[in-house]
Amino acid sequence: MNWTQARRAEKMNPSVIREILKVTEKPGIISFAGGLPSPKTFPISEFSAACEKVLRDDGQAALQYAASEGYAPLREMVAAMLPWEVDPAQVLITTGSQQGLDLIAKILIDEGSRVLVETPTYLGALQAFTPMEPNILSVASNANGLDLQDLKAKAEGARFFYVLPNFQNPTGRTMSEESRAALSAQASALGLPIVEDNPYGELWFDEPPPLPLTARNPEGCVYLGSFSKVLAPGLRLGFMVAPKSLYPKLLQAKQAADLHSPSFNQRMVAEVMKDGFLERHVPTIRALYKSQRDAMLTAMTREMPAGVEWNTPAGGMFLWVRLPQGMNAIELLPRAVERNVAFVPGWAFYADHPDTRTLRLSFVTASVEQINTGVAAIAAAINALNPEREQSREDALLVAK
Amino acid sequence: MNWTQARRAEKMNPSVIREILKVTEKPGIISFAGGLPSPKTFPISEFSAACEKVLRDDGQAALQYAASEGYAPLREMVAAMLPWEVDPAQVLITTGSQQGLDLIAKILIDEGSRVLVETPTYLGALQAFTPMEPNILSVASNANGLDLQDLKAKAEGARFFYVLPNFQNPTGRTMSEESRAALSAQASALGLPIVEDNPYGELWFDEPPPLPLTARNPEGCVYLGSFSKVLAPGLRLGFMVAPKSLYPKLLQAKQAADLHSPSFNQRMVAEVMKDGFLERHVPTIRALYKSQRDAMLTAMTREMPAGVEWNTPAGGMFLWVRLPQGMNAIELLPRAVERNVAFVPGWAFYADHPDTRTLRLSFVTASVEQINTGVAAIAAAINALNPEREQSREDALLVAK
Repeated sequence: MNWTQARRAEKMNPSVIREILKVTEKPGIISFAGGLPSPKTFPISEFSAACEKVLRDDGQAALQYAASEGYAPLREMVAAMLPWEVDPAQVLITTGSQQGLDLIAKILIDEGSRVLVETPTYLGALQAFTPMEPNILSVASNANGLDLQDLKAKAEGARFFYVLPNFQNPTGRTMSEESRAALSAQASALGLPIVEDNPYGELWFDEPPPLPLTARNPEGCVYLGSFSKVLAPGLRLGFMVAPKSLYPKLLQAKQAADLHSPSFNQRMVAEVMKDGFLERHVPTIRALYKSQRDAMLTAMTREMPAGVEWNTPAGGMFLWVRLPQGMNAIELLPRAVERNVAFVPGWAFYADHPDTRTLRLSFVTASVEQINTGVAAIAAAINALNPEREQSREDALLVAK
Repeated sequence: MNWTQARRAEKMNPSVIREILKVTEKPGIISFAGGLPSPKTFPISEFSAACEKVLRDDGQAALQYAASEGYAPLREMVAAMLPWEVDPAQVLITTGSQQGLDLIAKILIDEGSRVLVETPTYLGALQAFTPMEPNILSVASNANGLDLQDLKAKAEGARFFYVLPNFQNPTGRTMSEESRAALSAQASALGLPIVEDNPYGELWFDEPPPLPLTARNPEGCVYLGSFSKVLAPGLRLGFMVAPKSLYPKLLQAKQAADLHSPSFNQRMVAEVMKDGFLERHVPTIRALYKSQRDAMLTAMTREMPAGVEWNTPAGGMFLWVRLPQGMNAIELLPRAVERNVAFVPGWAFYADHPDTRTLRLSFVTASVEQINTGVAAIAAAINALNPEREQSREDALLVAK
């Protein structure tokens, strides 16, 4: 048979993370690799009660085909919970926020269109954009955050700038109020649309992050949100908020993609969320993840050899680590897996010019005990990769004795 | 803001059916327009029990991120229920079979690629293919079914032929064993891949339809199936079976599109389906839909003026009607809506050269009483559209007295 694949299919590659996760599939391995929320946070009994109620009171409608826009009460809840004036008519319920990226790619990217992303950025966004064959460019960061000069230099003709301002995947970093104000002003001056992805924004530890970019210029931004991190990912529900000029085309793309997101799931989530459930539930996730972050920071400080650097994320799920000069996280991985611990090498998250010294650690899925064991194992792997360094550390210890 | 839309966005149009359904949204209207399964057939209590069991026994896994391929036990059930040798590794669970069409379009269609469809065909497929900018050509039918000469004439360079052999949407027609054998042989001779869509195949009334095209040449076909018509559409679950040469790229496209279909829904469906539930349940749907078809056929025979033609579908959900010469179903619609009944004009389902005399009636959503009232109302609208014809009919009646 003459199966001729589309040209775009050649440009699509297996998810590096997916391939890595295959390598790490061995019994008893401690994984810091996945971006999985802690299943302890899933409100199972609330979901169970919601399923029963939805099926009992509204089963036929919940199981029938439904509007592509999404379940109206859920769209209203989304609009009401966002910190700027949102018309529920601008809310589109999506099959996870991943689908929002797919719809944006279809509507805004032509072959060769310039698309700007952060350095590094969410791998799933690169995967969602790639089939529409854009020319993806990374905007550099500097010590103050985003390098606005680099943004300006690359903005000409760009279809949009894709950005995760809160507890970013993969780096865990957060854009300050000052950076947001400056980016928003610069984007407006350049006429550069922003696609703002905010799956982690609710997972702050000490104080909420600054206002979203979209709140500062709703007509210039598409905003993506998710229920995966505050309720559960297995329901595959997210949402987008789009300017009225874009909404109709996004809706058509949504309809062609899967008709609508599961009506049953949408009613379940609306049922769970009513009466302010998230206001009681999300603080318990924040507290858990903060204690997990602290456990990982403590273990890193205790275990890591000199020269290894990491950040202190103010929320979210990820710690970003940088190995000493001359080391490579891709080479480190098999040595870590030998020691029963897994992570994702950072190069997977770069659209271009990867920093191969970086790696991403999730601190939310493993237990504190596993964090202690796993971080020690990574430290041992780093030392094994760099015996000279280990030797010099031992020498130093001997001298210190 | 300089929102520049992709060229493909211009080619995307609102669903005609969607726009039509808006016109028909008036209280108390009898709708034969939608393609909605009868909600009476949804096994609500089984779903409720399955939700409870899945959340109780396996809640954390059911609510977590999961493999893009789908839930392994469900993939095994799908492979086992199909009437040819299918390796579960070839089964990809999709967010409704609509998503299967989206993935196929991404993987197999370049701008300008030739794609062949039936005359008429499923509108949702046209919508799913259009964003990838194919050149869609209709293959003609003749009295014996598909016109294989026309297929051959148009097959050169075509990426695939999209076909619904069973109780087709919109026409309700079914391809005979002879037609399938001939099409399969012709496609193989031409090296023409087939995309076989089979959402309605289980809904047969008197005898099962002939073997799928895919069963005759698994390497030359992608097969799409759905749980929407045998369980419920609101869970948005379908599946595809792909040759091993295509599966990896379809999987990558799936992952980029929404990571995976809802893991909770997949476990729910697997839980409901185990122990052969479909073998007990689907016959009740068949019996209901057959009685509804019979009611509509009886009403049509009783009410329709001379010159109106319709078929006798052997399964599925739709009756296909053709108005007399000189009449137009698009003009008929507002007159029907005035009389509180709705349908879909057939021209919406043609990729090219629409037959504007045709219309689609669903016989499964309305009650028998509504069918009687609604068919009479359409007949009255036809007569009102064609007063001369009505007059001549009255004259004839007078003469007959």
